[in-house]
Order: sequence, then C-alpha cells, then structure tokens
Amino acid sequence: MSKQVYNFGAGPAMLPVPVMEQIRDEFLDFQGMGVSIIEISHRAKQFEKVLLDAQERFRQLTGLPDNYKILFVHGGARMQFAALPLNLANRSAGRKCLYVETGNFAKLANKDAKPFGDIQVIASSADTNYDRIPQITPAMVDQDAAYLHITSNNTIYGSRYQSFPETGKVPLIADQTSEILSRQIDYSRFGCVYAGLQKNLGPSGTALVVIREDLLGHAAAEIPTLLNYETCAKDNSLTNTANTFAIYVTGLVLKWLQELGGLAAIEKVNEQKARTLYDLIDGTDYYRGVIQPEFRGTMNVSFNLPSGELEAKFLQEAGEQGLYALKGHRSVGGIRASIYNAMPMAGVEALADFMRDFEAKNG
Amino acid sequence: MSKQVYNFGAGPAMLPVPVMEQIRDEFLDFQGMGVSIIEISHRAKQFEKVLLDAQERFRQLTGLPDNYKILFVHGGARMQFAALPLNLANRSAGRKCLYVETGNFAKLANKDAKPFGDIQVIASSADTNYDRIPQITPAMVDQDAAYLHITSNNTIYGSRYQSFPETGKVPLIADQTSEILSRQIDYSRFGCVYAGLQKNLGPSGTALVVIREDLLGHAAAEIPTLLNYETCAKDNSLTNTANTFAIYVTGLVLKWLQELGGLAAIEKVNEQKARTLYDLIDGTDYYRGVIQPEFRGTMNVSFNLPSGELEAKFLQEAGEQGLYALKGHRSVGGIRASIYNAMPMAGVEALADFMRDFEAKNG
Repeated sequence: MSKQVYNFGAGPAMLPVPVMEQIRDEFLDFQGMGVSIIEISHRAKQFEKVLLDAQERFRQLTGLPDNYKILFVHGGARMQFAALPLNLANRSAGRKCLYVETGNFAKLANKDAKPFGDIQVIASSADTNYDRIPQITPAMVDQDAAYLHITSNNTIYGSRYQSFPETGKVPLIADQTSEILSRQIDYSRFGCVYAGLQKNLGPSGTALVVIREDLLGHAAAEIPTLLNYETCAKDNSLTNTANTFAIYVTGLVLKWLQELGGLAAIEKVNEQKARTLYDLIDGTDYYRGVIQPEFRGTMNVSFNLPSGELEAKFLQEAGEQGLYALKGHRSVGGIRASIYNAMPMAGVEALADFMRDFEAKNG
Repeated sequence: MSKQVYNFGAGPAMLPVPVMEQIRDEFLDFQGMGVSIIEISHRAKQFEKVLLDAQERFRQLTGLPDNYKILFVHGGARMQFAALPLNLANRSAGRKCLYVETGNFAKLANKDAKPFGDIQVIASSADTNYDRIPQITPAMVDQDAAYLHITSNNTIYGSRYQSFPETGKVPLIADQTSEILSRQIDYSRFGCVYAGLQKNLGPSGTALVVIREDLLGHAAAEIPTLLNYETCAKDNSLTNTANTFAIYVTGLVLKWLQELGGLAAIEKVNEQKARTLYDLIDGTDYYRGVIQPEFRGTMNVSFNLPSGELEAKFLQEAGEQGLYALKGHRSVGGIRASIYNAMPMAGVEALADFMRDFEAKNG
C-alpha cells in the first residue's frame, strides 16, 4: 500500500478514489469484452452506451432543461475560448461579444476570442489584482451583443460569482471549469456553460459544453469542423474519434456524485471544506487570503504567508507530509489549496492541522 | 482470467498487452507518488519528463532530423485537417493547397480545409472506388502551392503509398494515422507528418504532429490559439492542459516498440502478418480483396465474401470465436481486419484459421 497523500493540485486534479479503483479493476476487461474501454471503437454500441449514460447522468444531476445539448468537445476549456465567438459572434450584426475580466483565464478567454469578433471588456478587476468580482448591472449589457462571457470561478484566485448578472436577452456564457457540479445553479439562466474536464469531471484534453439549442446554427463560415457546436450536437460528439477514455471516466465520476447525494449534498460538503480553511485564515494574521471575503468560492483557497521564504518552507514541509501540489499558480505565487469535489474532508483537516502546526513553529 | 480475444478494430485499436498491464499496475500510484498519472499537473516535473521522454523515443525510433518539431495537438487527425491550411496556406500567394483523394479520410481532409485556402484536388481514385493510389508526377505539383497533402495509408480500403511523390520545393504532408511507425520512412522527404494517436500510438483525442521548423510562422491571423503549430512548438505542447493520459500511454507504446527492435523489426512482422492474410485471399476466389494488389499496405486488410449474407454470418461466427470488430467501415461494408503494430502474429493466424474453416464450411 502506498502512503496516504492528499493532492491539492489545481488540475489535472485528484479524482474520487472509488472511481480510480474501478478504472484500474476493469482496465484490461471492460464489461467482460476481454478488451479495454480505450481499445474499443467510439462507434461500438458499448461505447455509445457509455456516452449516453454520461450525458443522462449530467442531466439528472443538474436538472438541465430538455432544450440544452450536452457536448464533449476536443481541446479543453481553452479551445472553447476560440470556439465561442466562432459559433456565436454572428448572432450580433456587429459581431459584438462582451467579456468580464476576473482573472488570468478570463483574460485569456477574451484574448483568444479577439480574431473572431468585436470583443469588449465591460468590467474588470485587474486594477485590484483580481481580488473581487466586479458588479455587472443590466445597463452595462449591450442588448445588441452576441453574448456576455464570465468566468464563474477563478481558479488562480479562488473568487467566484455568488450570483449571476441579469443580461436581458443577451445569452450569458460561463466558464465553469474549476467549479462545475460543485454547487447548484439554475442552468436556464445561461445560454452556455462549459468546463474543461480535468478538475471536477475527469481526465484532461476535452471540455463538456452545455448549450441552449437556439444558439446553434450561427457559426462563422470559416470554422474548423470540430469546433462547430451545431455539427457536434448533430453527431452527438462523434463527428470524429472522441476522447473515449475521458468520457468514460466522466461518466463514472457523475455516477459517484449521484450516489453521494447529488449537488445538494456535495455543495454542503464543499462549503464545510472551504469554511474549515477560511475560518483558520480569518483567525490569524499569519495567513492572508488573496481575495476579498465576500467573493470566496469553495474550490480554490489561495493565501499568502508573511514571506516568500516561509512559503517555500511551507510547501517543502507540506510535501514531506503528503500534502501535495499546494504551490500557487506561477503567475501569482503563494499557496493555493484546490479542494474540488473529490477532495475528502479528511484531506482538508490534514491541511488545517498542518497549517496550525506550521504557524505555531514558525509564527 | 478473461477469454483470449483478438481485437481487429480500426481504432481506437488494441494496444500492446505489456503496455496495458503496466498502465493498470501503476494506475493508482505513478512512480511512488501515491497519485495517478491522470491526477498530476501537466506542468509537474514528473509529467514534463513523460512528455520529453515520449518525444525523444519518437525521435530515436524514426531518426527524425533535428530541424523537425514533435507536437501533441488536441482533437486527433481530423482537427489537423483544418489546422494545416490555417498554419500553412499563407505560404502561397494564392493560398493554394494541393490534395490527393485516395479514400474517405483523404476526402474529409480537403473538405475540412476548404474554408481556409484555395483547395485543389490534383488526383483522385474515386472513379474506381479508391482501389488504388493514383500516380503523382512532378509536373502535377504546382510549385506555387503551399503544400501537397496525401493520406499515406487509407484505413477503410487498406491501400498505401509504396513510395512517395516528388514534390520539388512544395512541402509534402502525410496523414499517417493508420500506419505511423509501421514501416521505415525517410522523414526528411516530408514537410509534415501527422497521425491521430488511436491506432498505432495510444488512446484517442490527440494527434502527434511532426513538422519541419521552417514551416512554422505562417499561420493565418484568424487561427484558434491551440491550432497554431508555432505556438504549440514554442510551448512544447503545453499551451493549455494537454491530454496527459494519451501522451503517457504513447510514451509506453514507443518504449515497447524500441524494446521490440524498432521500426526495422516491426516492419518485418507487419509484412508477415499482411502476407498471411493476402496469401490466403489470393489462393481462393471465395475472398476478394477490395484494392489492387500493388497498392496493398500492411495495416488494414479489407475484403469481401460472395454475398452480404455470408459476410454477416462470417462476422457473427468470428465474434463468437473471440475475433472482434472485423466489420468493414460503414461507408463500404464487407470485412476489414486492422492489424496494427500491437496485433500479434498469433491473432492473424487465428483469423486465417477461421477464414479457411469458414470457407470449407460455407464455400
């Protein structure tokens, strides 16, 4: 048996232990076929069942209305940064697309979109180092725009939208990569929600895209076939060979989440986990959270110690105790604990114990 | 222990048994880390080593010259159908791109390229149902073109280029998806060679792209960031979260191939396997190969029986004997045995025995 470790990496992130064990146990023999799930055709009936099952479980978990399609699209969330304007900018006569900049990935989303539309940043928290979510009022949302794009949880900083802006008839699009299925949201408020799989869903390389049917059919003439959401919906994500392993693992993760009690149950656990760390941070001046308290999410807890030297020592000693991958993103430094759905309360408690102990010895 | 089966699927295809066993054995604990390879960051030093190791093994196996980059690009071969003209069409003043149509995927390659260049099909074997590779003479290759694209092995039909066309200063690009690393080729003859991983390399969802350095830097202004080969080369395939599982498995497959004796060794085995089936087909009128003999490759052996009813019976009984996924592609029907690098001679002999037996009983 290997030693007990807790992996706080931001992604690709830890997956639920029972899921990982099932993958291993059936890796050479999927459902008695004598071959692996990664060795069968994406058009085999056994894989089709895996795909349909994953989609159905997502729909059950989220209560997603029938007029939304569930797609698996190559390339992760970042590929969608280009795919979104390629699919949707034409809804607006001036190809106007609105963006809110609340962190590094929000900024990349509008940067990658620039070749494909008139990209307008209507609000940003760059001036305060992304320590908050700026307020979006209805008056700020140009009703001639193709869509408004937000990053609902900001992985690097740990901030999230506690509620979502009113956008009138402009479809709201959310990159939920680092928080999808971590809390209950009303999907009918959104035109499109998407997420790279590698945090709360499965392995890396692919994104799950949820899109309202009436938003399909507006793609640019010059769009790569595999980025066309209408084509992807028509072919049920099998226009070409899908990332079959990723879809299979995602299905198992969704099943695990259902058995756990669904989104209401995991939301409660996630709040307890985040509160455990933030209560500790708020109870001392030794640790300082990087975002303003009212914008705290439950997935990524980013904080600093009194000095860079102490942070280096903290990371070193945490690693030695099996608390892995706590280093903040290379763009900001410091400490970040990513505590996605698969992180058990025991892992968070182990980290909290370590933090208290570290402060006592080095405070 | 599960029953012995042989999986003749065209892709995602069978992978070498020792590779599959290693993946299973270390799935929960990669190199003593206590976490899985699919749970660690694409920027972790352990994954970086996996990536560099896979690239180095590919270079060793192929003797790839130093002025070629090895990239892992999202979306499989089909995504490259769009990425190629997006990266290269601007090399030609008229954005002229030349294509040879030798099968279904060759046709899709030029169809998907159409929005991004002046696509010209200079030769086709469509008129004889893709039963051959048309001859390409130097005079047919417009020297003002950005590139000439061929599909070096045609998965559905089993035809391949036995030698490659002379293209003058026009870069030759080959989709090698269904034959990469199955035989020795001189990479210096090509500007770019690419392949979806899911046949001879690893799991699905990603492509390996080999490109000569001087072909980088010509991308269209309106290109999705993740399809820009120059960006991908600069970031060593880590512009965003790569398909880490696929790259890891590919590295193991490359190691297996090196230990087997490399391309010279596998080429010999592949020739023996194909000859075993084609000798049988040539020795009877009962089975008829779909392509002209001089264009036969070693990866996909496609053939017909005297009637559709007999083909259905053949597939049914083969499946019952553990000979899987022998159904021809939905666009052509009949029988197809895909015998990629990982298919052992024993599997081919089992199929040949079954074919002789079936003919004896049903001939």
